[in-house]
This record gives sequence, structure tokens and C-alpha cells, in this order.
Amino acid sequence: MIVVMNHDANEKDIESVIRKLEKSGFQIHLSRGVERTIIGAIGDKTRLGSLALEAMPGVEKVVPILAPFKLASRNFKEQDTVVTVGDIQIGGQAVHVMAGPCAVESREQLMEAAFRVKEAGATVLRGGAFKPRTSPYSFQGLEEKGLEMLAEAREATGLYIVTEVMDSKTLSLVTQYADILQIGARNMQNFFLLRDAATTGKPVLLKRGPSATIEEWLMAAEYIISGGNQQVILCERGIRSFDPYTRNTLDLTAVPVLKYLTHLPVIVDPSHAIGKWRFVPPMARAAVAAGADGLLVEVHPNPSEALCDGPQSLTPENFRILMEEVRQVSKIMNRTMPDVR
Amino acid sequence: MIVVMNHDANEKDIESVIRKLEKSGFQIHLSRGVERTIIGAIGDKTRLGSLALEAMPGVEKVVPILAPFKLASRNFKEQDTVVTVGDIQIGGQAVHVMAGPCAVESREQLMEAAFRVKEAGATVLRGGAFKPRTSPYSFQGLEEKGLEMLAEAREATGLYIVTEVMDSKTLSLVTQYADILQIGARNMQNFFLLRDAATTGKPVLLKRGPSATIEEWLMAAEYIISGGNQQVILCERGIRSFDPYTRNTLDLTAVPVLKYLTHLPVIVDPSHAIGKWRFVPPMARAAVAAGADGLLVEVHPNPSEALCDGPQSLTPENFRILMEEVRQVSKIMNRTMPDVR
Amino acid sequence: MIVVMNHDANEKDIESVIRKLEKSGFQIHLSRGVERTIIGAIGDKTRLGSLALEAMPGVEKVVPILAPFKLASRNFKEQDTVVTVGDIQIGGQAVHVMAGPCAVESREQLMEAAFRVKEAGATVLRGGAFKPRTSPYSFQGLEEKGLEMLAEAREATGLYIVTEVMDSKTLSLVTQYADILQIGARNMQNFFLLRDAATTGKPVLLKRGPSATIEEWLMAAEYIISGGNQQVILCERGIRSFDPYTRNTLDLTAVPVLKYLTHLPVIVDPSHAIGKWRFVPPMARAAVAAGADGLLVEVHPNPSEALCDGPQSLTPENFRILMEEVRQVSKIMNRTMPDVR
Amino acid sequence: MIVVMNHDANEKDIESVIRKLEKSGFQIHLSRGVERTIIGAIGDKTRLGSLALEAMPGVEKVVPILAPFKLASRNFKEQDTVVTVGDIQIGGQAVHVMAGPCAVESREQLMEAAFRVKEAGATVLRGGAFKPRTSPYSFQGLEEKGLEMLAEAREATGLYIVTEVMDSKTLSLVTQYADILQIGARNMQNFFLLRDAATTGKPVLLKRGPSATIEEWLMAAEYIISGGNQQVILCERGIRSFDPYTRNTLDLTAVPVLKYLTHLPVIVDPSHAIGKWRFVPPMARAAVAAGADGLLVEVHPNPSEALCDGPQSLTPENFRILMEEVRQVSKIMNRTMPDVR
Repeated sequence: MIVVMNHDANEKDIESVIRKLEKSGFQIHLSRGVERTIIGAIGDKTRLGSLALEAMPGVEKVVPILAPFKLASRNFKEQDTVVTVGDIQIGGQAVHVMAGPCAVESREQLMEAAFRVKEAGATVLRGGAFKPRTSPYSFQGLEEKGLEMLAEAREATGLYIVTEVMDSKTLSLVTQYADILQIGARNMQNFFLLRDAATTGKPVLLKRGPSATIEEWLMAAEYIISGGNQQVILCERGIRSFDPYTRNTLDLTAVPVLKYLTHLPVIVDPSHAIGKWRFVPPMARAAVAAGADGLLVEVHPNPSEALCDGPQSLTPENFRILMEEVRQVSKIMNRTMPDVR
Repeated sequence: MIVVMNHDANEKDIESVIRKLEKSGFQIHLSRGVERTIIGAIGDKTRLGSLALEAMPGVEKVVPILAPFKLASRNFKEQDTVVTVGDIQIGGQAVHVMAGPCAVESREQLMEAAFRVKEAGATVLRGGAFKPRTSPYSFQGLEEKGLEMLAEAREATGLYIVTEVMDSKTLSLVTQYADILQIGARNMQNFFLLRDAATTGKPVLLKRGPSATIEEWLMAAEYIISGGNQQVILCERGIRSFDPYTRNTLDLTAVPVLKYLTHLPVIVDPSHAIGKWRFVPPMARAAVAAGADGLLVEVHPNPSEALCDGPQSLTPENFRILMEEVRQVSKIMNRTMPDVR
Repeated sequence: MIVVMNHDANEKDIESVIRKLEKSGFQIHLSRGVERTIIGAIGDKTRLGSLALEAMPGVEKVVPILAPFKLASRNFKEQDTVVTVGDIQIGGQAVHVMAGPCAVESREQLMEAAFRVKEAGATVLRGGAFKPRTSPYSFQGLEEKGLEMLAEAREATGLYIVTEVMDSKTLSLVTQYADILQIGARNMQNFFLLRDAATTGKPVLLKRGPSATIEEWLMAAEYIISGGNQQVILCERGIRSFDPYTRNTLDLTAVPVLKYLTHLPVIVDPSHAIGKWRFVPPMARAAVAAGADGLLVEVHPNPSEALCDGPQSLTPENFRILMEEVRQVSKIMNRTMPDVR
Repeated sequence: MIVVMNHDANEKDIESVIRKLEKSGFQIHLSRGVERTIIGAIGDKTRLGSLALEAMPGVEKVVPILAPFKLASRNFKEQDTVVTVGDIQIGGQAVHVMAGPCAVESREQLMEAAFRVKEAGATVLRGGAFKPRTSPYSFQGLEEKGLEMLAEAREATGLYIVTEVMDSKTLSLVTQYADILQIGARNMQNFFLLRDAATTGKPVLLKRGPSATIEEWLMAAEYIISGGNQQVILCERGIRSFDPYTRNTLDLTAVPVLKYLTHLPVIVDPSHAIGKWRFVPPMARAAVAAGADGLLVEVHPNPSEALCDGPQSLTPENFRILMEEVRQVSKIMNRTMPDVR
């Protein structure tokens, strides 16, 4: 960390900063320029949060040198983390696709979706039983009944289940049914939920908040890892931007950036990011070409009857074509995809 | 709502859309242009969320005509909502200032802050007992002990207490101590928490999410109101933007916009938005000049020793000066401020 | 276009709007709902800009139904526009890569870069002679001397030249040397320059402004096309966003969106968008997988000696590897790439 | 400047960086931490732009310590710059309001606007003769005829004239008529225009680009000042953001931030930022309460007949009321306003 002192900071100001840093166990390097004095501090970065150096007299700004995340960083653990779910491994050699409807709406809808995505090569079934909806008047999910249907679909197809957990109160319920706990974008900084999810021991799929920086996202992962659970999958799902044409702006560059900064697996959800099914297949291809370890894609047997996010859902037939294309891109990337069973 | 059909939509496509809308109780107006056919639908806007029209063949886009919020809108209730907390009324004639430290750190710190902000004219004491922190390594709050100290400070000063509730599990605990429940920016779309907070009957201070549109924010308020609790105070606290100089971009225009769209009281938190104490007083003045019903301001007896957000905290003396300035602006706005007691 | 009237608009207000629209040649459809009256107007969309309907009494908002661009739209011209530069065709079957240094710095630097990118399969040489720089103290380009060197490199290698034109005054000079005129991101809405560039008859590479919506970008293209020049290549180069880790956020979804909305060719510049060379190759692959017609990539013989944007420049060797990867992705996309000569 | 070396940078990498910095005249401070080596460089900040340190092997990132602007900074010149236009002084004791129509449309419209804003207390008349319009089909301004009308209005009313110059070709024409040259938001980084405008010796009103950081904006001012013209007025006019309710997000915090960072006067244009006249008066009050030196406000005798930006234009009567309110706020800020003449 570097503390930049003001143009008119005096000796007393400088000494106070140094004293405070030293008291917190930092080693100091002082450097006096013509226009500014700067103070370098070397020590345990996780202790910086508790110092209010910028509020001290004479301090202009504090510049962190190291990223604030530790357990999530590739410096800390060089080798890729592989998240194991039953007999599949996310973040390993194979690209895995998780697919299914936005919301579980009925037994029929879910079963149809499950069999069709399985046929096309998906290994994980997605489907929301608890749905965070902007409007209190929108369909909010089938809750426990939805979870039961997901379990039934798992039984019938052999697909694993990823489903969203919306808060700590329903966590133990969702944990009984899910193979992967999804923490949604709006909950990325629900810190109690992050900590509680860590204790379940289940893999956690952590979506990026719509206005979260990559650093803040990795700090959210750090909450889970420091809670004892390293089975974290990061999922890019679009950030908030100014162009109204797509729902969000899919930040695909986050994929190689994360691969560089962290050992955690990274997948991409083009459906939510874009909000229009037509543009999902090209961006699914692009995601894998950028290095993603997997995809999360919305598929609905009948998108125009969907109770949630129909406009971004693929038909099973369009999903099948997408999978063929993604399979080709995976090959170029020297990655496998599970055989169509 | 207007449904715009594609350039090459055929008659069957158009009829399907009409049939679906009519089945849902909407009245239809059809309008055929040279380049596009558009279908107007008149009916209960709260039912739109469940239709997936954009996924139907031939549909180009769906354009909502009415705002999706209802109970929160000024059309629904023309008169200003006044939130009553003990003997004060937020959203009424007087401008109210809520002030205090970011986090409750100790009995001494809190008492000192409480007496000083009271002297300067604040009517509500702010202070976090549960703190949502980006880093798991930062100070996370004194929890119940912090709440007890807040209660003690209320006893000693006569100030009311606003403090953050972070999730449903700790809601009943926080409700025992707080006069106003604060729902933080990161929780603005924690829909379970919104619904649960509604049932407490306590006034809720709802902060704007860092990337929430005004419409999404009002939809979050709609969750609380439709849950039976109209005592909602909206608090602008900055939105995420691209300029790194300030922490967030304070969207002061939201104040007159909200005053136009909703009957709920609106206050402004310049401290969190800006992140640098130096710029808090001018923006506090500006907020009241823009029509805000109150302010939420961080004050710490000794900002450079703060465990949280010291750089944005005012000293008690700077807060006193701010209050004098705000008092003058209030006068021009034909508003009162509580007498300094 | 739809005009939504206020809740309390009266008959006179409604009639005034109708009269104004009819006077401008629009056909009217009136639709009275319970809460709002809406007025549909059918007619020539290019005339909407001159009406100030939102300023009329009783008008709540005006909702455009059709996109405001016309000549640039795929509705107007269904077939892909192919831009011909000498013996190459951009927007045709082949993916073309334009590569070279950010700025022309010296004869040696440019020649070295030109031969190396040619060897790897590039068909167009990029290089700035006039450089728009944020700081007045940064290197501003070699100007005419730089243009002469570009011409010499063309002579020597057979590569075509794309170079930036910064304003109308230097347009005729740049036109003498360039095969493709680049209009930079900061000039995307320099409307005089757009119109003047149209008159040269040269192909124009139009970069997206850092905060331009796709619609605004296509309106800028509309300036050029309506000026008589349909040889426009659109170049996505990142939009301004809140995450400081990359310079900008590469909006790759713009590629399939543009392919849907317009007939113009679309290329991607990952170098400027990202600002860090390390992440350029994966995003180059992703761009082609998303459907881009080409790439614009910075290559410098010695990035750490570059006078401009070294950190985002690839070495010739890394560029060669990138080209091999892009070649493979192109094949999957059923596209060719020019043979390495 | 601080150069942070990679985790695995070796001695040779470190030495290369040091050598390059020393060759450029920088003094070096080396600091070796457990996880990183950092290199501090002290010297002339205006020379940093030409070094490509981030492209050197082993370099992780370069952290600037000092702001890159120099002549525009308050460190360089502590005293407020006062821009003199005839007998008025912008940035001095008085708050000045510049008002008038978006575009000059006719002699009658302009004269009516001019007399009405003058009556209400404006000292400068705004009005566009050259109009940058998103659509090539929108009204583009009366050009020289518009300038002549502005001159006539000046003659008749004694108001000074501010009008936009769109490029270098029309600069000498506009300079003949304008008292203040306006450089629009889209041209903030039109560097040729900035330099050329500097040479006219006229005061320049420099609008903030819609996605410009404060630092980039001050660098644009630096172009003008380093070109020999210190008569620069900065004008905040809203930044691009994600909320569609207002056209842009007015960043009022920029006012006190600029007052801290630079000696240049700062004014605010609430009309363009917001796009809806209804919210202009509260934000005009807020701007002055935040410390603005003046305002730029659109006023049209008949907004619903305006050829440009009618929805954001005030009627003369609403402007009169705004001026009364602003006068009151100015008084509190210990500022004067010119007497109504």
C-alpha cells in the first residue's frame, strides 16, 4: 500500500501516518518527492480494511498495491480449482453446460426440458424454485414443490441440479435438493448468505452482481472460501450499462481476466445477460472461445408460454444446434465435451 | 402496453398475440402501419409480468406504457406520505437530519457522536451494528452489543435510532432496538427481506441499489407497501459510474424525479455516495435545495480512528457548520428544521 | 411513434397533439385506456426529430416504435454490404485482420511491423500518423511523415492502409495516403467530419464512441451513408464501464446485434478495448466466434519501447499465434482467411 | 509514479525498468516487499505518457501518484481564475446565468427569448447556430444566419453571446460573432479544435464529455491552457448512466470536486443533463448550492414549437421563477447576482 501525502502535509502529519502503520505491524518505506511525500507500507494486506488512513490529516489518497483477495487468488493457489459434482468436474478438461428453464413451472414443463437438454449434451439442469423478481406481482416460483420436481427430474435423467437459494432461511431446504447452490446476482454481496452457504459444503455457483467489479466479485468468493468452502464456480452474467438494446452488457473479457487472477472455474450465462434468445448462440460460442469452463443457458419447451424470461429462452431445437456449435469451439480450445448420452 | 410486431410478422402471428392478450383480460387496439403492425393492450398492468409476449413468433418488442409500480405511485396516492417516528415526521414540513458514525465501535465513541449530533440539530442517530463489508477481513460490526449501545444512546439523548438490518434471520433482533429499519443498498432487491421487513410495522429506510434504476427502486418499495407497510423512506446514496474520483455518483436529480413519481419521502446520503468528507457539506446543501426531505450523514468523533469509512466521516465540528448551512437552505425552501435543543 | 398522454391531459391537449401530427403528415390512431390516452402516429420516421411533442401540454412521453436509422438498417437493404479495398472484400466470406502499431514512430518500426503482420496473415496495416491523445504532453504522431511511411510500407508489403483522420482540415491529406479512413471513437459524433469523409468516396472504418448506444452508432453511420458513401465498416472497441481492471468493456454482443440490425460489416478491436495485451488473443478468438467480419489488432516490434499504447500491443510472435487460433475459429464459422503469403 | 512488479519478476526485469526510468530523468526509490517489489519514480509527470512501462517484462501495473494535469491544477495556480467577458466576470463574486434557446430558429424567436431572459436577470444569451444532432434528418441550425441574429440580439439587449463551434473549419466564422466559444460535449476530446480554439484568445466554455472522467476533462482544459488561453469555463452537463428516466445523470458533485482540483470557473447546464424541463429549476438551485459559478439554461418562448430540445426548455415565465429562486440560494452562498435590468 502506498500513502500519498498532500502537497501541504507537514512533518507531524507524516509521522502520525507512519506511527499508525507501524503500530499495525507494517514496515515503512518513505520517499520524498518534489511535490509529494509518499509512504510505502509492507505487511498483511487483509489488515488494511481497518485503517482509516485517508481520514488522517495531510493524507491525499491511499493506493493499494496488492489485490485485496487472498484465498481466491492465483498467487495463493496456482493450480486450477476443479469443482466436483457427482461424476463431473467443473473447471477440468471438459466444458460443461447447465441448461433448463428460468423457473420450474410444472412437472411436465420441467421433465420435457430436462430430457431435451440431456439429449443435447447438458450435464446439469437449471431451474428456479425460488425466483427473485423485480415486481411483487410477477410469478415468484413454486418453492418447495419446485425443488421436489427438480429432484424428480434428476432421478429420471441423471442430470445434476443447480438452483438458486435466495436467503439463509431457506438455505437448508434448498441444500437438501440442490447439487450446486446458485447465489444470484442481486445476492452477490449478501454476506450472511455467502457465509451460511459456505458451511453447507455444497458447491456454490456465484453470479456476478450487475454492478460488481471483478475485485468485488472475488471478495465475495473470498467470503465463501474463508468460510471453509473452496468449491466456488464464478458465473459472468452481464453488467449494467447504458445501452438499452440488450438487458445487460455481457463482459466476456472477465473470463480470461478471471483465469489470470484466480484459480476458480468460470462459466458464462449469456441468456440473462442479453435477454434476447436470438443472440445467445453466438455469445455461447464466444464464451467458450474466450476460455470459459462452461455455460448456463435457458431452455424452455415453449418459450412463449414461459412464466419467466421467455424472451431469452431457447427452444430445445435451437439449444441442440447451439450445443453442436459449442462442441466445435471446445475442440479448438483443446477441451472435451461430455458425449451426448 | 404496446406490442410491436416484426417487419415480416404474418397474420397468424398477430392473431396469436391478440388471443393471448384477450385471454389475460386485456382490451385490444390494432394499428397497422406501412412498416409495422402494433397492438395496444389496455388492462391491469400488474398482470403483464406473467406474459412472455416477446418470445412469441413475429413479436419485435413490447413497450410498457405505464410505470410498473402502483401503490408507490403518486397517481395512486396524490398526497405526500409522512412517516412518523415518535414525535417527528419525515416527509412533512421539517427537514430531518440523521447523523452518527458508520459503525458503532464502542460505548464512548457512540455517546460522544450522539451528543454532538444532537447538539447540532440532528433528530435521528445512525450507527451500524451489523455491517455489510466488501472484505471478509474488515470489521463486521458489534452486532447485538452495538444495538444495546444504540438503545442506551437513545435513552440518553432522545434521538431516534436508524440502523441496518442485513437479513431476515436478524430482523426480529434489530426490530427490538431500531426506530427505523435501514435496508442497505446491496439488499435493495433482497425480496424476502423486503417482505419480512414490511410485517414488522416499523418505518423502513430503503437505500437505492448502486445500479438500480428509479423504477426498480420504486418496485422494491412496492414490495414493502404491498406487504402492508406504507412507512417507507427512500434514500439516494449514489449510483455506480465510471469516474473513480468519488466512490459513487450522487444522483441528486433523483430527488425531484421521485417527488414527482411517488408520494414517499426522499432523503439523501451524501457521505456514502462521495466517500470523501470534504465534499459532503456542499452536496448536503444541494440535496436540500433539490427538495430532499432529509439527510443521512456520517459523523465520527475522531474520523482517523474510525473502524469503518473514516475518510467520509465529518468531525462533529464540521457537522455543526454543515447543519447551519443546511438550516439556511431549508428556510429558502420554506421548510423548517428542528430547533437545536 | 406512440404519444402517451398524462393522467390529467384534457381533450384540448389531445386535440393539439393530433393536429400537430396530422399537419406533419402523420396518420393517427387514438386509443383511450382507463388510466391513459395514447396516440399512435404512422408516417415518415425521419421527420420525428423536428417535432417537440414532449414539450406540449398533457404529453407524458413519446415512445418511438421504429429505429431512427434507415439507410443503415437491414430492413432497408437486406443483403450484406461488402466493402471492397483493392483486391480484398471486408464483410464477405473471408475474415480480415488489420494489424500494426498504435502509432507510426519510425520507418524501421513500421517496416518491421508491416512485414511481420503480413507474414502472419494480416491484409491491412494499421498505424496512426495523427494521434488523439488524452494528454497534450503525449506523443501526437508524425503527421504527414507518418503517412508517407505508411505508403512506403504498402508499397513494400502489398498491405492496404487504414489510418485515422482526426478532422476535416487534414482529411484531404489523409485521403491521399489511406485505403481506409478510420474515424476514431472520440470523433464518432463529429458530424462535420462524418459528412466530409462521406464525400471522399473512400471506405470509412467507424469506431464506436465509448458511450455510444448501438442506435447512436448506426445514426453516425447514417450520416456517412446519407452523404453518399455506403462503404462503412463498423468497429466495436469497448464501452466505458465501471470496472477499472480493463480500460473499457468490450461489448462483443454488439457483433451479433449489429449483424441483425444492419447490413454493414462489423469488426472488433480488442486491443484498445482491453488495454492489456495478455487478454487480446482470447477476445480475438471470441470476436470471430461471435460473428465478426474482421479484427483490428495492435502489434509492435518492441512493445516496451512503444511511444503509444505499448501495454496493449502484441509482439509479432504473439500475433502469429493469435492468427493461427483465429484461423481455426474462422473455419468453424465457415469463413475463410487469406492465405499466409 | 509507482511501478509494481509482478510476483515472479526477476532482477533483470527490475533493472530494466530502473534503467528506463533513469534514462528519462526520473529519480528512483526501490522497495522490496514480501510479495512484490515496487519502484517509485520521482520526476516530471508530463513525461510519463511516453513511457510504455506496463509493456516491459515483469511489470504488473503502473500507478500514477500525481494527477496528469498541471496548468489546470490548483497546485499550480492557487487563486481562482476569473474569466472576463466585457463587463462581467465569470468565476468571481457574482453568479452568472446564460440562457436562451437550444437553437436559433428565427429572428423573432431569438429576440423574444433574449429580451425575456435579460429581464429575468441573465447576462449571457445562449443559442446554437451550428447544431450537432444525433440524426442527419434533424434540424442542423441556421449557421451564419443564426450567428448574425445572435449579434443582432446582443446589440439589442446588451447580453453577451455564447454559441457552439463544431469544428476548426467554422471556427473563425464563429469567433467573429461569439463572446464565448462553446465546445460541446461530443467535442471535448476533439484535440485539434481545442488547440485551435486556444489561439482565438476568446473565452472557451468547455462542456464535459458524456463519459469523460473529471481527470480527462481537466486534460482537455490543459490542451487549451497549454495552447496559451487560460480563459476556460468548465460546464458540467450530465454523464451517461444506466437510468433511462433522465437523459443523462447530472454529476453535481463534480462542482465541489473541480473547485478543489482546479482554479477554473465551473458552471452547470441542468437542461441538457436532465432532458425534462420540470426538473430543471430544482437542479439549478442545487447547482448553486453546491458552489457553481453559474448556469446554462434553455429557455424558449414556445417550447412546444421548438425545432430542438423543446422538452427540456423552460418558458420565459418559468425561467423568471427559477431566477428568483437561484437569487435566494446565491445570497446564502455569499454570492451576488447581477441586478435585473
